[in-house]
Amino acid sequence: MEIVITGGAGFLGVRLARTLLGLGQLARAGAAPSPLTRLTLVDRVAPPQELLSDPRVTAVTGELNALLQDEAGRSAMLKPQTAIIFHLAAAVSGECEADFDLGMRSNLDATRALLDACRALNSRPMLVFASSLAVFGNSPEQPLPATIEDNTLPTPQNSYGCQKFMAEQLVADCTRKGFIQGRNVRLMTVSVRPGKPNGAASSFLSGMIREPLAGLRATCPVPGETAVALSSPARTIEGLLCAARTSDTDWGARSAVNLPSIQTTAGAMAEALRRVAGQAATDLIDWTPDPAIARIVTNWPAQIRATRAAQLGLLADTDFEAIIRDYVRENPNAVKLPVSA
Amino acid sequence: MEIVITGGAGFLGVRLARTLLGLGQLARAGAAPSPLTRLTLVDRVAPPQELLSDPRVTAVTGELNALLQDEAGRSAMLKPQTAIIFHLAAAVSGECEADFDLGMRSNLDATRALLDACRALNSRPMLVFASSLAVFGNSPEQPLPATIEDNTLPTPQNSYGCQKFMAEQLVADCTRKGFIQGRNVRLMTVSVRPGKPNGAASSFLSGMIREPLAGLRATCPVPGETAVALSSPARTIEGLLCAARTSDTDWGARSAVNLPSIQTTAGAMAEALRRVAGQAATDLIDWTPDPAIARIVTNWPAQIRATRAAQLGLLADTDFEAIIRDYVRENPNAVKLPVSA
Repeated sequence: MEIVITGGAGFLGVRLARTLLGLGQLARAGAAPSPLTRLTLVDRVAPPQELLSDPRVTAVTGELNALLQDEAGRSAMLKPQTAIIFHLAAAVSGECEADFDLGMRSNLDATRALLDACRALNSRPMLVFASSLAVFGNSPEQPLPATIEDNTLPTPQNSYGCQKFMAEQLVADCTRKGFIQGRNVRLMTVSVRPGKPNGAASSFLSGMIREPLAGLRATCPVPGETAVALSSPARTIEGLLCAARTSDTDWGARSAVNLPSIQTTAGAMAEALRRVAGQAATDLIDWTPDPAIARIVTNWPAQIRATRAAQLGLLADTDFEAIIRDYVRENPNAVKLPVSA
Repeated sequence: MEIVITGGAGFLGVRLARTLLGLGQLARAGAAPSPLTRLTLVDRVAPPQELLSDPRVTAVTGELNALLQDEAGRSAMLKPQTAIIFHLAAAVSGECEADFDLGMRSNLDATRALLDACRALNSRPMLVFASSLAVFGNSPEQPLPATIEDNTLPTPQNSYGCQKFMAEQLVADCTRKGFIQGRNVRLMTVSVRPGKPNGAASSFLSGMIREPLAGLRATCPVPGETAVALSSPARTIEGLLCAARTSDTDWGARSAVNLPSIQTTAGAMAEALRRVAGQAATDLIDWTPDPAIARIVTNWPAQIRATRAAQLGLLADTDFEAIIRDYVRENPNAVKLPVSA
């Protein structure tokens, strides 16, 4: 089985690639498991050497839109035998709010070009689309319900969420038309992400844990009582794999499935960090309000009932402290402060 | 005040143009009424001579996407002083289902190009977008609720509905960003339309009344018990004008407003025709099932609660027989059968 990951050099893409290579096989849409023969990682930068050294891995490096405009780029990425595409590549929320046209190109046009290329294969490949919690937005003129359900009407309050929601519609219609076998999956904010801050408005929700553990100062730009819905990297990858594995019948509607999330607050996250790494860690957090970020993040919902995900057997993280301890175990070189047992 | 109508030579565009020219002025978004100084009708064909002979009317003839790609076309259509754009131009449902790419170009790309051109004016013009009931679709894996509300999640079951729903999102985000003052309005199936059948799956809902009144045979491709939600031409124009006139505060959410509709059945429509023009008229209807059309039309909702529209003072038609009698009065040359008083 040949699998493609767009955004394959990003944090989630690399983690998904490692997981797939470790599994060595995948069962597509309820079919029997099939061995992974080729994993193509598409991104603007090359993936880590550890992945490139696996003989099953091919890297295609370039801007997704540009690759898809070009016959050579398309055929390097997608083969007639490509079975599954995980479409993770995107411009993030902060970038899209600052540059409307960039967001439209990266999140709508690139997805459309990818769907066109999949359709041209004439083989109805599986496409798992990573949409986002950010499709939901609260506003004075249209308050969100207290609890978000799978069938709650998204009313995006930022361009990233709007573009993701439009792309969901296109994935659904291309599925209905039989061009692809599509799965719309709404990812929650992933925390704790390793690595560096990115342009996502939610970037601080990893940074406020990751940086102090590394002995560095971090900023929390929202008040401690700000409620957030998070998912660990492990649960997020589980959700993407589940989408690819589930049969059409079990998956059901073409509209998006909200992944499970743990509901917590910025303050409770800092408290969990204190339990793991002590006051020395939490003292490194500067609680400096940033109205631009707060406006985006506080308009995302914090209570989400993931009914369809639960029916598919997907469970939420139950404990943010456990998520921090997973991060510490998985990223020993990035942790400089002493950690309690 | 300068106003633009895309699809300005179509049935609704012409009727809207006549209404605006008759009013002679319009109050934009709660402001004081301003006299109509120029009405630009954009369409692939020229509007009727009666409109062209009005000194306030300008016709811009061409394919909307092509006009908007071209600086000369854009500046012929849109001026810095353009106050209101009614965006009615679209490929219809049957066409879009037969030709996916045509629908994407006509309904998504053209709307996007129009929004880009509006944004480039830097004057935040009012844009009233004619979306459609067709955003809602019923399917076995995702049944529609018995009653559609303004905040019901659309799950389009045809490409036309999907494209209209994506365009709604773009209009909403461009409004949020301050590029335009946008109004998303969902039109119901309009009946009785004068003129000729078109490629809309719902075309028969006018044809089964219009053709028999003209002494011609007509086909009803769905069973008599098929429920439909309709709006008269007059109520539909009322809805579009209301959107342009209503202040941002009164309009509220940027998500779409469902216009009011009368809920009836194909059989009850034929019965109303019999009361107006007798058995001689209804004998001209061939009840010949067409699975392709039935699949589209029977998946549209028939019970729609238009709460926001009612709050704006918009009322539904109450009687389909009265709609037929309006058609007879407004189109005397198209009626050949004797009509009861």
